[in-house]
Amino acid sequence: VLALSFDGDALRLARDQPEPTAGPGEAVVAVLRAGICSTDVEITRGYLGFRGTPGHEWVGRVIAAPDAPALVGTRVVGEINYACGRCTMCTAGMDRHCPTRRVCGIVGADGAFAERLCIPAAQLHRVPDDVPDRAAVFVEPLAAAFAVLEQVPDVAGRRAIILGDGKLGILVAQVLRAAGADVLLSGRHARKLDVARSLGVTVGTPLAGADLVVDASGSPDGLATAVALARPRGIVVMKTTVAAEHRLDLAPAVVNEVSLVGSRCGRFAPAIAALAAGRVAVEPLIDAEYPLADGLAAFERARTRGVLKVLLAVSR
Amino acid sequence: VLALSFDGDALRLARDQPEPTAGPGEAVVAVLRAGICSTDVEITRGYLGFRGTPGHEWVGRVIAAPDAPALVGTRVVGEINYACGRCTMCTAGMDRHCPTRRVCGIVGADGAFAERLCIPAAQLHRVPDDVPDRAAVFVEPLAAAFAVLEQVPDVAGRRAIILGDGKLGILVAQVLRAAGADVLLSGRHARKLDVARSLGVTVGTPLAGADLVVDASGSPDGLATAVALARPRGIVVMKTTVAAEHRLDLAPAVVNEVSLVGSRCGRFAPAIAALAAGRVAVEPLIDAEYPLADGLAAFERARTRGVLKVLLAVSR
Repeated sequence: VLALSFDGDALRLARDQPEPTAGPGEAVVAVLRAGICSTDVEITRGYLGFRGTPGHEWVGRVIAAPDAPALVGTRVVGEINYACGRCTMCTAGMDRHCPTRRVCGIVGADGAFAERLCIPAAQLHRVPDDVPDRAAVFVEPLAAAFAVLEQVPDVAGRRAIILGDGKLGILVAQVLRAAGADVLLSGRHARKLDVARSLGVTVGTPLAGADLVVDASGSPDGLATAVALARPRGIVVMKTTVAAEHRLDLAPAVVNEVSLVGSRCGRFAPAIAALAAGRVAVEPLIDAEYPLADGLAAFERARTRGVLKVLLAVSR
Repeated sequence: VLALSFDGDALRLARDQPEPTAGPGEAVVAVLRAGICSTDVEITRGYLGFRGTPGHEWVGRVIAAPDAPALVGTRVVGEINYACGRCTMCTAGMDRHCPTRRVCGIVGADGAFAERLCIPAAQLHRVPDDVPDRAAVFVEPLAAAFAVLEQVPDVAGRRAIILGDGKLGILVAQVLRAAGADVLLSGRHARKLDVARSLGVTVGTPLAGADLVVDASGSPDGLATAVALARPRGIVVMKTTVAAEHRLDLAPAVVNEVSLVGSRCGRFAPAIAALAAGRVAVEPLIDAEYPLADGLAAFERARTRGVLKVLLAVSR
């Protein structure tokens, strides 16, 4: 089958990857569409030392599931952390932090930039018929945006600032607004800010004193800015994983007793429900779609400054 | 009256400071004893640009209080943040974060390294008779240790690591242990670790996976160590205000969804109650006591590596 593959040196198009077969508890999915995430771009630069097929944002159709035959033929998305299910973290309900987890297309498991994906069937969620493929492919990043609500309860009526006009920033802005927060998004790209505005997100220059600041800037400077914008005892959600070191003076965070909350992945269910109910719009975030065979060009496009989401159309 | 005074250049002993008089709502206190804090040492190096008499850890006897005559003659300690009482922060119960606050001996208000201290009477707390002066002088730093319990509820049964064998670290260790946490203190000074051990605090080399890590190391490296020791979704309490920049990679905090909580001052009431009940011991933390007239020598001693608390005996 056709797949993109990273060998530690370069991303290549592999035309003759073996057809995967489903082991115990596994399913094989025909990928319909997949999204290229900034993490995928980082992976092609060596992030986490991943080798194989990247891709963790996808929608597909189940073509084999020996232990879950009812799934065959259904359209699905998949949670990306494949946990052991038995360790302390897993039994405490924190399977996304299982120390021996594999992560789809990121750690120890091939991902979705391929015609076929093999995945533990327990990871799969059915996609409602009224959520099109081009929206379903956003379930994973949207779940990461919803994670903010898991970690910061009671955002209704709070003043929230989102730093960063990228895909994640715009998703977080929509999620917080839908939850009743008073949201302002701050960014540096005129075109991305236009997209945010078109989605009804308030855009502008933030003033200090916010209850909640989400750093989705992707920049090493974002965190210091976020801390400066938070009110005393306010909350900063850290959504940025920068490969470089942060250099910042955290004394203001101590003096103002600000909480900095690391935030990564979220549950899929609220994201699927929000897309089905139309509470979050994602179509305006899509800048381009390429067939999988043009995947290298798609990555070039995704690496370009100012570009939002680039999709791969894999099969129908 | 006699006072230590910092003029921006050096700490000096001033023998002829004017006797303060109590304005509306104020009290004048005869300082009995005062403690030298690391912040005081930082102030003599230029921290926060403070000018005047430092000293925010003290116990004294009220000698004048025109608007609160019942206080005269009582033995008291004083909360250090003098808030406006009217702004958004104050009315939200966060007076310690009042943006126009003065802070005793730290920001805009003379402190307690003097024979007399003038302070808003509302800041004062009576000291129970069974708490001696040498213990009462620890109310302020002990309140800062209790702040951890305000910010991290439910420490009972949790595995907690304290980084730093200084005064604050040893106080935090005692507070967390009294609250039912499973505490390990980590430090680098054999003698200070002996003091901690003598107080029943478990001392050793920490293993990763702690529910709670308190960085009281006073070192720019402490925070990265603390993040590495916290379990996924664990909490790091930042007690260190380092003048220098931190250099750290916060990606592990994001991936592990660790919360970093800035923590500064705390309420006095639980600290006074703990000292009165003997739940926290402070006498072993005292390394030396100097008369105020030898205050410069006391500061020299307080600056010495490996020294715990140095007290000033001001009057009787």
